[in-house]
Amino acid sequence: MSAPGRFSLNQATIKYASLTEAVDATVAAGIPSIGLWREPVAEFGLAASAAYVRDAGLRVSSLCRGGFLTGDHAAALDENRRAIEETAALGAPALVLVVGGLPAGSRDLVGARERVRDALGELTADARAAGIQLAIEPLHPMYVADRAVVSTLGQALDIAEQFDARDVGVVVDTFHVFWDPDVLPQIARAGASGRIASYQVCDWNLPIATDALLSRGYPGDGFIDFESLTRAVAAAGYEGDVECEIFRQDIWDAPYGEVVGTSLARYRELVEPYLS
Amino acid sequence: MSAPGRFSLNQATIKYASLTEAVDATVAAGIPSIGLWREPVAEFGLAASAAYVRDAGLRVSSLCRGGFLTGDHAAALDENRRAIEETAALGAPALVLVVGGLPAGSRDLVGARERVRDALGELTADARAAGIQLAIEPLHPMYVADRAVVSTLGQALDIAEQFDARDVGVVVDTFHVFWDPDVLPQIARAGASGRIASYQVCDWNLPIATDALLSRGYPGDGFIDFESLTRAVAAAGYEGDVECEIFRQDIWDAPYGEVVGTSLARYRELVEPYLS
Repeated sequence: MSAPGRFSLNQATIKYASLTEAVDATVAAGIPSIGLWREPVAEFGLAASAAYVRDAGLRVSSLCRGGFLTGDHAAALDENRRAIEETAALGAPALVLVVGGLPAGSRDLVGARERVRDALGELTADARAAGIQLAIEPLHPMYVADRAVVSTLGQALDIAEQFDARDVGVVVDTFHVFWDPDVLPQIARAGASGRIASYQVCDWNLPIATDALLSRGYPGDGFIDFESLTRAVAAAGYEGDVECEIFRQDIWDAPYGEVVGTSLARYRELVEPYLS
Repeated sequence: MSAPGRFSLNQATIKYASLTEAVDATVAAGIPSIGLWREPVAEFGLAASAAYVRDAGLRVSSLCRGGFLTGDHAAALDENRRAIEETAALGAPALVLVVGGLPAGSRDLVGARERVRDALGELTADARAAGIQLAIEPLHPMYVADRAVVSTLGQALDIAEQFDARDVGVVVDTFHVFWDPDVLPQIARAGASGRIASYQVCDWNLPIATDALLSRGYPGDGFIDFESLTRAVAAAGYEGDVECEIFRQDIWDAPYGEVVGTSLARYRELVEPYLS
């Protein structure tokens, strides 16, 4: 494939764009794939969104996001079943799961992790029926209390491997995993069992933003070595799209076309050379 | 021992206190031990500080800190040799090491970690001669780029175990390790080889502070389960002092006596019951 052949723009990188604006900006840049988010899809309508993306000739690399499995159990199952259906309707191979933090008032990380596993067990049949993979995204440990009690790729795989690889995989997001001394062998492990559902790239910048969620940056602006991580993902056999997903205020405030162009340029320079 | 028998006030919890003010506040609260920092010790003078603490009847639980081993090699060795001598002069059993982040302009975490191990190899003879233990402190992964390329207890032990346990141990600081899915077995591993050099307690609060170093809080104010961590440290055979070390602006701005009192009260309520 040519350079942008596996590049996917994650819609959150241009957060304020509507679904149609995001699709149009992606197509205009010659990018073949997009990672969608549930909220803008819902705003434009599920069927309309699926049609718009299809008519634009784009692949949908993933849908963000399901998860939040550590709180009310029944509500979480309902919400994730809807997200699974949306993933299938959009033609995406995977639903990204941010698993959730500690339940309100709890300090029991071990118990919260058991809730994640138990909820996944009740969702795999739905995923199988829909033909999509649930993708556990380990989040950086600074989000353990409030967003994701799954913090490492190894831990995500320990959970995922309790299920069929067709049903449960993992996300490798450079921002969340680059610090991990065990990351390279865990990427190999994920690939060996066919569980890399998505590879997402963005950088780790300092200082950590006031809203810690917004500390990401364009590849190349921070501290991550994309060569070693990308080589590991490629060596692990991953052949899917590579999403650029950045949450950062000054990027959100910039013109969509400029952001899409910079994202693609950084991918071509820092990621794509190591994919094959 | 009675409740405060193993409690130690880490001097950084009352950062703006001079050495004599910190010692006096510790004694006034009936606390038997203090964790010192090099800067206030240097300000009062090493010999004078050692005498002042000794005359006050306090143990010195640790000296903070050495480390920063990833930059200029010769300068780091010189600085750490001075810190080792100071540790011995103060009668502290351990020198806490913050190992350092990525060298300027580098993204090579693997290489930086090798520098840490190599530098330790050149410092162990000095530590042995001084009769103190070098204590590798794994820092929370949010500090990997700028402060410590050692992020987990398991990783710290992988390095420490390349050396004699008399020379190189690890610090278990609740703030840095609570999120780790592998923390309890790694505490057991550290204890089994006699490598728990220090147990430090403080809480993980949200939101993360604008200066991410200052996100700590009094035990009980955040998300950490002190019972499970403390039980694990006790079961691992640790019998040393338990330091309360908090970096937080509003605590630094409060009267020393109030801070010391609250720290001790939280220790008695949330930590001490699980030490035996």
